[in-house]
Amino acid sequence: MSQMEEDKVACLPRLSRVAVCGGTHGNELSGVYLVRELLKAKKKVMEEKEPVLMVLSNPRAMQQCSRYIDTDLNRCFTQATLNGPTSDLAPYEIIRSRQLNVMLGPKGSPEAVDLICDLHNTTANMGLCFITYSDSDWICLHIFRHLQRQMPDVPMRYINFDISHKESYSLDSVGKHGFAMEIGPQPHGVVRSNIYRVMKDAVLHMLDWVHFFNSGTIFEGGFVDVFTVVRHIDYPRERETRNIIAAIHPQLQDRDFCLLHPGDALFQTFSGETLSYNGNEPLYPFFVNECAYYEKGIALYLARKRHVMIPVIRVQTEKEQQINKEGFESEEE
Amino acid sequence: MSQMEEDKVACLPRLSRVAVCGGTHGNELSGVYLVRELLKAKKKVMEEKEPVLMVLSNPRAMQQCSRYIDTDLNRCFTQATLNGPTSDLAPYEIIRSRQLNVMLGPKGSPEAVDLICDLHNTTANMGLCFITYSDSDWICLHIFRHLQRQMPDVPMRYINFDISHKESYSLDSVGKHGFAMEIGPQPHGVVRSNIYRVMKDAVLHMLDWVHFFNSGTIFEGGFVDVFTVVRHIDYPRERETRNIIAAIHPQLQDRDFCLLHPGDALFQTFSGETLSYNGNEPLYPFFVNECAYYEKGIALYLARKRHVMIPVIRVQTEKEQQINKEGFESEEE
Repeated sequence: MSQMEEDKVACLPRLSRVAVCGGTHGNELSGVYLVRELLKAKKKVMEEKEPVLMVLSNPRAMQQCSRYIDTDLNRCFTQATLNGPTSDLAPYEIIRSRQLNVMLGPKGSPEAVDLICDLHNTTANMGLCFITYSDSDWICLHIFRHLQRQMPDVPMRYINFDISHKESYSLDSVGKHGFAMEIGPQPHGVVRSNIYRVMKDAVLHMLDWVHFFNSGTIFEGGFVDVFTVVRHIDYPRERETRNIIAAIHPQLQDRDFCLLHPGDALFQTFSGETLSYNGNEPLYPFFVNECAYYEKGIALYLARKRHVMIPVIRVQTEKEQQINKEGFESEEE
Repeated sequence: MSQMEEDKVACLPRLSRVAVCGGTHGNELSGVYLVRELLKAKKKVMEEKEPVLMVLSNPRAMQQCSRYIDTDLNRCFTQATLNGPTSDLAPYEIIRSRQLNVMLGPKGSPEAVDLICDLHNTTANMGLCFITYSDSDWICLHIFRHLQRQMPDVPMRYINFDISHKESYSLDSVGKHGFAMEIGPQPHGVVRSNIYRVMKDAVLHMLDWVHFFNSGTIFEGGFVDVFTVVRHIDYPRERETRNIIAAIHPQLQDRDFCLLHPGDALFQTFSGETLSYNGNEPLYPFFVNECAYYEKGIALYLARKRHVMIPVIRVQTEKEQQINKEGFESEEE
């Protein structure tokens, strides 16, 4: 590689500590069973390429096979919630989020783990999605591209919620890098072999990538399609009871990431009427009819797609890492 | 019709009181929203062909969008449970089952409603199923055949659990005739327009049939395939934790009612191993990977299929009905 080419390479710190988390939502079972399986496999094969921290995030919700006990754990990782006043009477998930922040963070500190992959399922027909807070986290984007290449038969998308690091609320935001791996469709409380298999392969390919990266592999630049969230739409509801009065229209159901145009069918009321999308630009729907979002008032999200260029990357040499840590080149050199 | 033909006709009492129930499981949403919709429609259109009792069976579970609060309501309608000792500390569903038994029963008495159709959803790929306790309830079998003819595009099966009336445990067993209408696949806690639409059409066709029957229509005899339950199979589990260690095999998933032969793939363990069906006869699987049955220890049911002949039926004339009630022909005649 010439000096000019070398200048364009993003040199990033080694990923020494990686965490794979399942059961952040206790009824999203692929992650629960995959983490259990990896923990067992780890016991059997003691030598590991990289030490990987395997975490079952919400054991009490897993026990009950429910999303959460008191409140959605995966909304508890804002700086405000993590650093708010403590009390024994706090909801279980608030207490648990702080334990996880001690284990994997503290969020925003140099001690935080380098990479968190948090495993999720959805009832929406979303294939495999990375859900992130950034369209310029080269680590997450390169891992995504690696998975796309290794698993060409699996539909994959990269989603970006444009939220500041401080305001970011999900478990994966505790790591220096992090993403939720969301796979569907699968009913909550159910484990389907095909979905489990995709998740297992994806996690193993991710760990391979981390190993390659740490070993000095140079990864070529390129492009990734990034879906950036624009807004969400709630179900039509009765004013008094807040009961929904329509479901996702059959023409939209299961068509996540198929462009929705103004005038397209959006909902079908329970009496049979069609309600159309009245936005003024075509957007990409996703999380269409996700079970857990009824209570959040979200029938679907809408996103814009962009083609994002990602640079060549490689791990920093020990010397670069040292400089990086100290913030300057030491006198001796 | 000749006298000989007339002799073969089963003359059955009028179906004066019909109940359609939804929300017996609070997270099976097609029935919840359909019964709400029919209640609204009833308010609008006050004249009805037949008076239909519309019931939301488990309002507290519906409120929480969970299957049940304390225990599965649809297992509370045995004579033993309905007539057991009462207490204010009884589980909510035990109390509720007695309220429903007052409203729709008492089970086994002449006061019970004539027909109960209880609406359910499943995560299994079962299409539309009637679930009954009898292979000789001509009313249920004729309604089933009517639906098959009216909705030829919907896969339909008639399932028979061979359990005595006294031991029968589900809400529909409270009526003189009754069946659960089970439709899937749909994740619990989700409403899909296509599934809702099938349920709505099926219920309206059923009510049409009741109207035709009560109006004196003679329904031709014929044959119905009846699936009689032979046994069920649990997931392979860890001895200590009782955690499952395998999921339904991809070759079996979504293949409800496709004959399963000895040696066919049944489960895939989380480490990737295939476990086969070791029964000694081919049987029809159903409720394959039903969410709510993990806790019951049921990965799937297996059934035998039989071709059952059903007779010509018509409603009893008023005179026949009178004789039937009194048990003999009165002297005057």
